Formats: sequence, structure tokens, C-alpha cells
Amino acid sequence: MTTPDHPLDELDELASCRARFSLPEDVIYLDGNSLGPLSSGVVERVTDTVRQGWGRSLIRAWNDHGWIDWPERLGDRLAALIGAVPGSVTVTDTLSLNVAKAVSAALEMTPGRKLIVSDTGNFPSDVYMVEGLLRGLGADHEIRLVEPEQVLESIDERVAIVMLTQVDYRTGRLHDIDKITARAHAAGAVSFWDLAHSAGALPIDVTGANVDFAAGCTYKYLNGGPGAPGFIYAKPALIDNIQPLLSGWLGSAEPFAFESHYRPAKGIRRLRVGTPPVLALAALEAALDVWTDIDVTAVRRKSCALGDLFIDEVERRCSRFGLTLASPRRAVERGSQVTFKCEQGYAVMAALVAHGVIGDYRAPDSLRFGFAPLYLRYADVVQAAAVLEDVLENETYKRPEFQNQPAVT
Amino acid sequence: MTTPDHPLDELDELASCRARFSLPEDVIYLDGNSLGPLSSGVVERVTDTVRQGWGRSLIRAWNDHGWIDWPERLGDRLAALIGAVPGSVTVTDTLSLNVAKAVSAALEMTPGRKLIVSDTGNFPSDVYMVEGLLRGLGADHEIRLVEPEQVLESIDERVAIVMLTQVDYRTGRLHDIDKITARAHAAGAVSFWDLAHSAGALPIDVTGANVDFAAGCTYKYLNGGPGAPGFIYAKPALIDNIQPLLSGWLGSAEPFAFESHYRPAKGIRRLRVGTPPVLALAALEAALDVWTDIDVTAVRRKSCALGDLFIDEVERRCSRFGLTLASPRRAVERGSQVTFKCEQGYAVMAALVAHGVIGDYRAPDSLRFGFAPLYLRYADVVQAAAVLEDVLENETYKRPEFQNQPAVT
Repeated sequence: MTTPDHPLDELDELASCRARFSLPEDVIYLDGNSLGPLSSGVVERVTDTVRQGWGRSLIRAWNDHGWIDWPERLGDRLAALIGAVPGSVTVTDTLSLNVAKAVSAALEMTPGRKLIVSDTGNFPSDVYMVEGLLRGLGADHEIRLVEPEQVLESIDERVAIVMLTQVDYRTGRLHDIDKITARAHAAGAVSFWDLAHSAGALPIDVTGANVDFAAGCTYKYLNGGPGAPGFIYAKPALIDNIQPLLSGWLGSAEPFAFESHYRPAKGIRRLRVGTPPVLALAALEAALDVWTDIDVTAVRRKSCALGDLFIDEVERRCSRFGLTLASPRRAVERGSQVTFKCEQGYAVMAALVAHGVIGDYRAPDSLRFGFAPLYLRYADVVQAAAVLEDVLENETYKRPEFQNQPAVT
Repeated sequence: MTTPDHPLDELDELASCRARFSLPEDVIYLDGNSLGPLSSGVVERVTDTVRQGWGRSLIRAWNDHGWIDWPERLGDRLAALIGAVPGSVTVTDTLSLNVAKAVSAALEMTPGRKLIVSDTGNFPSDVYMVEGLLRGLGADHEIRLVEPEQVLESIDERVAIVMLTQVDYRTGRLHDIDKITARAHAAGAVSFWDLAHSAGALPIDVTGANVDFAAGCTYKYLNGGPGAPGFIYAKPALIDNIQPLLSGWLGSAEPFAFESHYRPAKGIRRLRVGTPPVLALAALEAALDVWTDIDVTAVRRKSCALGDLFIDEVERRCSRFGLTLASPRRAVERGSQVTFKCEQGYAVMAALVAHGVIGDYRAPDSLRFGFAPLYLRYADVVQAAAVLEDVLENETYKRPEFQNQPAVT
């Protein structure tokens, strides 16, 4: 597809970053909030790790190539992106498992309190993990899912944990980490933040906000690759008092002493469990290289502008087809995505994808578009809105091939 | 190094399989029980997954490339190697996490019973995971670590779970799965088997043995790559009654319905948690291709012969230096590894590695050698023993560079 130029791209301070990604030419990719694209350097790093590390050094690579410490080395690079101090983040397991680690630790820190506050905008898996833990632990806690606007008023001295995703995966609505964390602490509760849709999308300062625990994934705005491992942050003052529920050997004090009983490692490493996923870490490292010289405030500036432009363009072109904005209109209240509700959502998104505009659909009626400022142009955003208009105007989405929803959309 | 020919290699029915691996020419690799080597086809499969799947199809690859079902597709291929029926194995998370899943499920199946029997030959991480769970759950169970020979007599009607690693990671001592599982069931206990050192090394029949739960890793004899994901098996009759402790969205009934509360998926998929590690699955798939036409009984035959030959050669050449066999002498009582005790174990192994013979060291005094019949030659085994003799005779291991033990050996 030919994308007309847009004057703002001439002024874009991040314009040169686009060259750091390998993007298909026929695609406008508005789904970096789900799976970030391939960064240049990833293929080479992974291939080198496979051929030289695994293939030639074999078992020796755990030491010679530094594989064994890779989770904390990459953790330190993520720490820089979320305002964490070095040594407070490790890259391990999946986000959901890291939720279990943080919540089980937080439960132990809050004896006698029986309420976990979350909201209806939290990602379901976070809630599922807590449900499983509470049932398994035989705990009589209640998880209360309030509306996002009611979170602050729902935090009182009965609350053990305030557990939220900063950016709502459906609407992009952004929580105020500072205010909510402060309220949680004032009430004596522990805070856990899911940063899946915020890490790499906007400035975060977990230290300044005094966050207790945070976790996230690395395959969205951080572009770590499909199924890239999650990360977990624990406030340095807390970590050495945590007795991990998931106490695996690589979180133990001396894994290669093969002691009969578990002794946790000092520091964030105790939140590791098993053997690190080396190929995935290689891909993630190369993806994080892209971020070395990036100012996240510039990312946020452009993200807000792209989102605003998209809302303007879609409303101007498509309101007559019944699309309604599901995201906050004010950029400061949004993460880096914009969602429109649309009755024929699945089919419309399928048609968009067929026309090279890749967003995603979230049941029952949401069209979700992510804006990753490192590789998106203002021109892309305008063009995407134009294609959406075309699909709606010509009713392309009514074609039979766009009606059958597969397992993943 | 030049390895003299050995007449048995001429008769080896698996000799042609060596060409399926990419092995450094200057190395005799006796550590496939720790990290299996690179199979041919892996680089291409991973590169293709990165370039075509991630790079070009982007988010669409979850459906178009079948990524979302990959854990069970590969699970079915592992099932064939461990005597499991299709649909009873999934590839997910790490072995340690899969221990937690199985043990937490088994605890719920055995109310009122307070004893978990394991042995001193179990891999420490398995015990650590149970310690963490019991502490977290506030359970007053006891984990009793008996000597391997005492396992059978330790199983009585107080026992909730019999939890063992089939092949001892240090000595290679092999447990009788059939007999122990039958005894566990006769006593009303649930069986969990760690197959880390047996999958791909010897014939296993979890169905015939009526095993309840099993788990393993894929980076040893299965050659899945560094940090390749683990697998978990649950007896089909049990799976739909399990309420997972670690209840993540991709183990839920309809992940993309984003329901507010967890409902477990039918079947083995409920033991999944988060997003599958796609690059690792690509590597594992290519590594499993090697196994397509392999008869595991032939693997076992050669493994026994290689181990016997190595014991003979080492004892003949090196007994005078104080080496003593730590493994069972009878091949049928061993897995696919042989361990010798040696006072200067670390330094001797470091010297061996420097001379191209890669085994590993396990504290305090074990030299561990693994025999992976798909790529090892009888000549390699003889040559490895000769190099060991040379290192001991010339006291090469006393050199300063072999004295400093790093974090991983």
C-alpha cells in the first residue's frame, strides 16, 4: 500500500528509530501493544547464540557466555526503563507466574487482612492467578473487582493488596500509580502493579512511586519476541524478607551446591525458579539494544500525538458508521493505545488486517489499535484511519472470509 | 583431537544419527545429560520462525503459524517417547514449575495424608519446590527424604505423594517406576515422577506404569536447547478434576473470551499458564524431528553398552589414581550416565574439558559423564577414558588454571 506523507513526520525526533525494525512493507502495524515487531539485530543475536553458544560452547556457555546471569543483566536494562534501581528486576518465567510470586509474597506481608482490591480493567489472567492461589492456599480472602474510577475510594485498612494493571488492556485507560500506591500504603496495604501495557510505552518511576511489586511482559512495547519472558520487580527493602512460594533451584542461595533444603538467594534472584530461556533472552537483549539511547519522555510525547491524531481521523471519517471511542479522550489519561467500539468488531478487524492494517479485536466489540512511537509514522496513523473508513464505507467487512473467528484474534 | 576407530562403531545401528547433530570437531561431548547439543535443522527452524513468523506474520502468526497450539503439538511428540497417550502432555514453563503444578494437585487429591516420600537422590529443586509450597500453603506435611533403596518400604497408608526422579542426577541410579508406582497406588498415594534424566535416554511407559503425574525437561537427552521449556504429563483420568494452583489465562477454557473468573480448560491445556515461548518451541520442534524414526530400545541398548565400556576403560586405566565408581555397575540399574568419585573432582573435570572431553562436575567429588547414543561413538568413550588417564597420570589437573571454580560447572 502507498502511504501519503504527513508533515509531522518531518519533525519527528524519533523518526530515525524506524530503521531499527524489520517491518513488512505492506503492513501498518498497530498491534505492537500485543506483539512488538522484530528489531534489527535479533536474527543475528539469536543465530549467534545458537551456533556459537549452544552449538560450539555447549554446556560451557552457561559460564563463558554469561548465560547464568543473563536474567539480572537484562533486568538491569529493564530497571532503567521503569525507574527501578539496578538489582531490583529479573527477567524470568511469564507475567502470570510473576503475579503469583508477588501476590503470594504480599499475602504473607499482610496477615489478618482479607481483601484484595483490583478493578474490572485488570487483565483477566492476573485475577485468575490470584483465584488459583487463594483456592489452593485455602485462604478466605475476597478479590474485589471495582470499577477503575472507584479504586481509590475502595482502599481502606481491611485491604491486604492493591493489584492493578496500570494501562487497561481493552481501553488504554491509565491509572495514577503515584496516587494509588500512596493510598495503598497509607491504608497499610501492599501494592502490585502489572506494567504489561506501560513498560516501553510511557515513563514509569517505580522507585519514586514507592511501588512494592511490579511485573510485566517483554513482548509488547519492548519487542522481545513471541512468548518472551516476563519480568518482576520487588522493592529492594522487601526482597530479602520474601520467602518465595515458587522456590526453585536457580532462586536458591547456591544452586550448584545442590543442598538438600532450600535457602533463598540474596536479592531479586530469589524470584527466579528454573533454567533461564536462553534463546528468548538473546532475542530480548537485541530488542533492548534499540532502547539504549531512547528518551522515554520523547516516546510518550509522540505516543500521545499519534493517539490524538488517530482519534481525530477516525471520528472525522468513521463516526457516521457507528464507531464510538472506548478510550479516554485526553491523552494524559491513556496509555499508548486507542480502542473504538464497533458492533461488527471482529469482521471489521479481519477486513482491516486483510488490507494491511493490523490492530486487534477484543470481544465483544472492541477494535484495539496500539501506537508504538519507535516505528510508527504519523502518515501510518492517517492511512490506517483511511483504510478503516474504506472498509466501513464499502462494507468490505461483510465478506464471508471475515466472519469466522479463530482461536486467537 | 584424533580419536582412534573402535570396531563396535562399524556395527552400530544408530551410527548414522550422529550426522543429525552439529558437534564441534575438537570435542567429545559427554554432557548431553545436562545440555544436549545442537541438532541440525535448529538454526533454520528458529531463523524461519523469527523472520517469517514473528517478522512477517507478526501477531497473525499465533493463528497462521499454529503457535497457540504448539505446546500440545510438541506434547504429543513427547508423549510418544514416554508411553503417554496423545493429549496428555504439554510443553510449558520449567520443570520446577511443573513440579509445583503436579504436587499441588496431588496434595488436593490426598486429604488427611501428611507425608510426602522422596529420596536423597531426588534433584534438589523438586524438593525445594515442595518446601516452598508447603510453607506457603501453611500445610503441616512432612517431606521425608529416604535413601533410594528404602523408598518401597517407606510407602504406607500415611503417604500422600511419592515423588521421585527416575534417574539420580548424580549417580545415574535408576528407579523401578512400575514397582514403586504400584506400591504407591496400593497404599492410596499419588505418584509423581521427574523424568529429566530419562526422557530420550531410555524407554518409559507412563501409561503402562499407571503414573499419575510426570514432568521433565527437554534440554538434556531431547536436545531442545539451553533453557528449553519443561513438559508435564497428567493421567487422562485425572486431568479434568484438577483445579490448578497456577491458573493462568492460557490454561483457561476460553482465553480470548477474557472472562472475569477462571474456568479451567478441558484436558492437559489447563496446566499451561502464560504465553508459550515461541522461539524455544521452534528449536525444540527441530530437535524432536531427529527422533522421528528412532527406536528408543535401540537407544537404550547402545547407552548400556557405552556406559559399560566407559566403566571398563576408566577402571582399567584410572583405578590406580583413586577413582571409584559412584554409579550402579549393572547397566540395567543405571540411566544413561556414569559417575566416578575423585577427590580433585573439580580440577580434574576442568582439565578434561580443556582437553576436549566435556563432562561435568557435581560437588563435592563427582565426575559425571553422560552417554547420548544418538551422537556418541564407542571410539569417543574409549578416547575419553584415555584422556582422563592422561590428565591423572601427568597431573595436568594441578595446573593453576584448573583450580578456580566458577558459578556453574
